Amino acid sequence: MTDPSGFPPPPVAAPVIGIVGGLGRMGRWFEAFLRGEGYEVLVADLATSLSPEDLAARCDVVILAVPMEAFGEVAARVGPRMREAAFLTDLCSLKAPQVAVMLEAARCEVAGTHPLFGPGETEAAGLRVALCPGRGEVWIRWWEGVFRRRGVQTVVLSAERHDRAMAWVQALNHFILVALGQAAAETTAAELCDIAALATPSFQRQVEILARLAQQDPALYAAIQGGNPHAAAVLDRFCGKAERLRALLAAGDMEGFGRCFRAAQALGARLAKGCGRIPGEG
Amino acid sequence: MTDPSGFPPPPVAAPVIGIVGGLGRMGRWFEAFLRGEGYEVLVADLATSLSPEDLAARCDVVILAVPMEAFGEVAARVGPRMREAAFLTDLCSLKAPQVAVMLEAARCEVAGTHPLFGPGETEAAGLRVALCPGRGEVWIRWWEGVFRRRGVQTVVLSAERHDRAMAWVQALNHFILVALGQAAAETTAAELCDIAALATPSFQRQVEILARLAQQDPALYAAIQGGNPHAAAVLDRFCGKAERLRALLAAGDMEGFGRCFRAAQALGARLAKGCGRIPGEG
Repeated sequence: MTDPSGFPPPPVAAPVIGIVGGLGRMGRWFEAFLRGEGYEVLVADLATSLSPEDLAARCDVVILAVPMEAFGEVAARVGPRMREAAFLTDLCSLKAPQVAVMLEAARCEVAGTHPLFGPGETEAAGLRVALCPGRGEVWIRWWEGVFRRRGVQTVVLSAERHDRAMAWVQALNHFILVALGQAAAETTAAELCDIAALATPSFQRQVEILARLAQQDPALYAAIQGGNPHAAAVLDRFCGKAERLRALLAAGDMEGFGRCFRAAQALGARLAKGCGRIPGEG
Repeated sequence: MTDPSGFPPPPVAAPVIGIVGGLGRMGRWFEAFLRGEGYEVLVADLATSLSPEDLAARCDVVILAVPMEAFGEVAARVGPRMREAAFLTDLCSLKAPQVAVMLEAARCEVAGTHPLFGPGETEAAGLRVALCPGRGEVWIRWWEGVFRRRGVQTVVLSAERHDRAMAWVQALNHFILVALGQAAAETTAAELCDIAALATPSFQRQVEILARLAQQDPALYAAIQGGNPHAAAVLDRFCGKAERLRALLAAGDMEGFGRCFRAAQALGARLAKGCGRIPGEG
């Protein structure tokens, strides 16, 4: 039975899905999501009697929902116990190293999964997930269908392309927020209240992004900065542009500023025109 | 008759309101807004037969809705023609220089007005306006009430405090956007599409802010950068923090990054806790 959306059923009837790290926040999110789709879900974590190895031997699909620091060790324990007809995936924020580690550790189908959202989201529709093929083409199509049926947007691309884009989406974005937060942290309380009270719609969005930081995990943010080999070049490019712009303004070269502004506007127009379209969504 | 909100009626019955630069986009916004409140509104602009001087002589309230470049000249023409019992205000993005110019040009009541929104807004409720007292306390209370009755939030503070906050809200915010836009403008079209497609909720907000730039006026943005005497120190502080963060990451000092991240989080928590509250709104 093929889904009207064109996504196939799972390669085995009623697959059992295992989540390693299933007691973590993202692990619980996926457990609830998949149970909601009618799947049997097993969970292994530090506090469960079920070990990752036993879970791997019993499941058709294994999701590694573990921190990047523990990833290599967990994959090495789980991979060899998986059946060749099974599917191994993960939920890390970077994909090239993780997909390589999974390919090395297991002989089954492998794909990387990056949920582009946090575990606080209660409504699946409208969320986004990146999928990076590793080995095999059967399970990944089913996996994509699981998301699509719930209205989650899927973007399928190579782990390399994913990580290059994440140097902007995560590394540079967090970098700017941390620099902005550090600069603002030195204002007086009264000045900070003025700034918040006078925020324009544009700056209100910056304040919202900054306010979200308070709920994030510093270790994850450090791993994202330290683990992405493409990040350094992107941060350097941003800092170089900022430095040049600073020099223009310090010299009072408002024509030069105007040229820079119009270049940024042209980029804004490209983005506004819908480069944000999800590939494959008409 | 006192308004239930506590804001007084105008000092003269049925005041006539004049807008200099009333054919510009912001001028038209205020014309529609004030007509909607039942006031008689006169308009002077380059293309009207009514001159700014004649408008000034006929009106109880004059709003200068002119670009910052033309502000000094227009104020010098209008101010001397205004009655001493009248009210002069403006709509510029900076306030200390403008309030000083108006105080010099006219003997009537003076206050600065900064609408913290663009002329594309169709719904007044929820918008924000900063008001900076110059001379007198009667008209400004009426003026604040005009906004409040339509659900516009008002923030009353000195021109100096306003401009200090704007160094963050406008100068630094635009600076970051332009540097980000310039850096991104050098990516390939394919990479830009990946970036847009993989945007997290946090980065989606950055993309939205960037996309809004396309509709803005480069001359206004240059005037905001060049005209705010507090901007240079704020830009320097941000650039210094960014440079230090860049050095930490380049040296692989993830503990140092963690400390910076937690400082930014603390600021985020302060902002999330409601420093965004509008003063005087309980």
